Amino acid sequence: MHKKIVRLTVSDVRFPTSLEQHGSDAMHTDPDYSVAYVVIETDQGMHGYGLTFTVGRGTEIVVCAVEALSALVVGKSLEEIVSDFRGFYRLLTSDGQMRWIGPEKGVIQLATAAVLNAVWDLWARSEGKPLWKLLVEMDPRKLISCIDFRYITDALTEQEALDILVKAQTGKQQRVDQMLKEGYPAYTTSCAWLGYSDQLLKQLCTDALNDGWTKFKVKVGADLEDDIRRCSLIRQMIGPHNTLMIDANQRWDVGEAITWVTRLAEYKPLWIEEPTSPDDILGHAAISKALAPLGIGVATGEQCHNRVMFKQFLQASALQFVQIDSCRLGSVNENLAVLLMAHKFKVPVCPHAGGVGLCELVQHLILFDYISVSASLDNRMCEFVDHLHQHFRSPVVIQNAHYMPPKDPGYSCEMLESSVQTHQYPQGQVWKNLQ
Amino acid sequence: MHKKIVRLTVSDVRFPTSLEQHGSDAMHTDPDYSVAYVVIETDQGMHGYGLTFTVGRGTEIVVCAVEALSALVVGKSLEEIVSDFRGFYRLLTSDGQMRWIGPEKGVIQLATAAVLNAVWDLWARSEGKPLWKLLVEMDPRKLISCIDFRYITDALTEQEALDILVKAQTGKQQRVDQMLKEGYPAYTTSCAWLGYSDQLLKQLCTDALNDGWTKFKVKVGADLEDDIRRCSLIRQMIGPHNTLMIDANQRWDVGEAITWVTRLAEYKPLWIEEPTSPDDILGHAAISKALAPLGIGVATGEQCHNRVMFKQFLQASALQFVQIDSCRLGSVNENLAVLLMAHKFKVPVCPHAGGVGLCELVQHLILFDYISVSASLDNRMCEFVDHLHQHFRSPVVIQNAHYMPPKDPGYSCEMLESSVQTHQYPQGQVWKNLQ
Repeated sequence: MHKKIVRLTVSDVRFPTSLEQHGSDAMHTDPDYSVAYVVIETDQGMHGYGLTFTVGRGTEIVVCAVEALSALVVGKSLEEIVSDFRGFYRLLTSDGQMRWIGPEKGVIQLATAAVLNAVWDLWARSEGKPLWKLLVEMDPRKLISCIDFRYITDALTEQEALDILVKAQTGKQQRVDQMLKEGYPAYTTSCAWLGYSDQLLKQLCTDALNDGWTKFKVKVGADLEDDIRRCSLIRQMIGPHNTLMIDANQRWDVGEAITWVTRLAEYKPLWIEEPTSPDDILGHAAISKALAPLGIGVATGEQCHNRVMFKQFLQASALQFVQIDSCRLGSVNENLAVLLMAHKFKVPVCPHAGGVGLCELVQHLILFDYISVSASLDNRMCEFVDHLHQHFRSPVVIQNAHYMPPKDPGYSCEMLESSVQTHQYPQGQVWKNLQ
Repeated sequence: MHKKIVRLTVSDVRFPTSLEQHGSDAMHTDPDYSVAYVVIETDQGMHGYGLTFTVGRGTEIVVCAVEALSALVVGKSLEEIVSDFRGFYRLLTSDGQMRWIGPEKGVIQLATAAVLNAVWDLWARSEGKPLWKLLVEMDPRKLISCIDFRYITDALTEQEALDILVKAQTGKQQRVDQMLKEGYPAYTTSCAWLGYSDQLLKQLCTDALNDGWTKFKVKVGADLEDDIRRCSLIRQMIGPHNTLMIDANQRWDVGEAITWVTRLAEYKPLWIEEPTSPDDILGHAAISKALAPLGIGVATGEQCHNRVMFKQFLQASALQFVQIDSCRLGSVNENLAVLLMAHKFKVPVCPHAGGVGLCELVQHLILFDYISVSASLDNRMCEFVDHLHQHFRSPVVIQNAHYMPPKDPGYSCEMLESSVQTHQYPQGQVWKNLQ
């Protein structure tokens, strides 16, 4: 029986996180964590939920873009879409008029992600499986047929991608069982946002250590003396054997990044994240080369806007950790392309998460990566931020600093209706109360 | 007396060009040439006009983004803005919440261009000069203070930029006089849109030759046999000594681009434009290297979204012709950065134009480039498309295939009020008649 999509609605949902400096970093000093939240409905009353993450102002622009894409989705059946998902992806990203305002970047790509996340959610629900399981159990040829290889065949051909997936069939069931038992390793960013006081930072660090966390990320980049004090403090708190990462959120120019991070090298960070412009592939390559002798890698990706950019970061050895984002790239389709390229170039994937719902979504992708692509946990971990999960129908489950595989059907995107209602911007009660 | 900006309005203005296949290429098969059109007004009743070019659907998203930026502009005075134009540029492009949906790319950057184009128009009008003259007569230090050097100092420092401008003061008046007399050399794209029949193409070519045109661009990329026929036809029409360029509008993957263009080499194109994804710096570098022995250069830029991308194209020797766009980059401010980088890397600038108003705007920038930066016309020319100029208050003046320097104060952005009214989407009369 065909499931025809008859309605798409989109909401501007914002959380006033800036009031307490949650999420603050060197470039985003006052974020109000937000989503453009999409619900699609079939003629049989089935729903798919999707979202893309934003940080406040500008969410209305993404909402406007989702509305523009809506005409390409409503009227299609799920079966029609997934029987040629590559074609449907191309339809959304290469519309003869709308691609001008991208292409495949910025607002229009964020909107594409929100819409396609809802389609993937609907697909997984219609199969009665959590998304990671839908992917893991899907025939490799079918998976490949979801990927748009345009502009990446010089780095990865369809045949190479297929070979990777076929090879990783070996031992798959063992890895599924392992994940169900142990979960996927995570690190925490919740302890050290830039706007937090030293006292709060100490307290949160102590709590996290007690909860079993062993990997910690610190925001840096606004003031060097501050950074030295904060890194020193955290390294003291966590001891020499736990892992420290630092994140500058694009604050520096290339030369400045090298100088600054060199000053922080004594605190032994595993990586420096987003040292400079997310568009600067050659800049990241120069920074990678300069920091390699210090044992510090470069991580980036949360604002890497498509597979063509990730392709080049890999080709240029410009990163040592690939940070995919479930809502910046064009949904699962484009993330599959990046996971496969990262595997070919032997670079570990450590997803970006946090925000609103990013943990809920990306856990599915990284489970698939381990089970069906990389078959390795070396140097791999998924970001975790303990924030806003209470607004989701199926929130992440963390046990002993590991993501436990979701069990509910779908892509874990569904928000509580009450949360959506009260946080709608500007008419929701939360925002009315703040006026 | 201070000129305080008290109002900003933005309109969605569309021309139904798809009805006759004007502007059709391998990726944009049915463009309706459009603009997000911005008018700012001061408390003294003075106006500034700005726009960014779009191709139909999605213009409403750019309009929404302009409205979001409006709050950062209204209430500021012109003097306040231009006394720290770099700071104002940074304010618009690095808003702590809105930069997430860019940064400096796609919809939000197009909106930034529209808004800042209006500010530059207002500035030039308030000085009673056409924009090119405002720039040419501006103190080099003042010019530099308009540029945001963030993320490009590894390729061009402020001091280097200043040195370039100071050095080019020599002979400036001669070049001004030369431009006023002869104009800036142009090439035409009006003869060979992809959707045009061979017969129409022949007719337009004959007319253009009679009008003194010597440089012609042909759209290619959809079908190789078609391209061979069309290139052969045009080369026959224009003879061996006139110049032919070909433009694929991002149709190919890297390997495909090399193979395809090699097949067209016998028609001796000067450049292949946009052979692949506009984001693929390393891909363009590979294509440049492969085509160099054939004497064919690579040109790109109309969808190159910021100075960080252009920086890398230059660093990687990935293009031999820099095609700046007056509405894709962040207005004059960011174009200044790119002109100076191109000069340092010794790569000629040949602007993208056409669309709606792009010719009107970019002529100012390329005049400035010749008079105050490059001091050379070698391998340089500015695109011209003979289309939609009648909707502008001060349309371009072409004489003997040269752009004649504009004389009216401002940035030539002002449209006729009647044109704006009748083409507003969807409520204008032109669109009502098409329903």
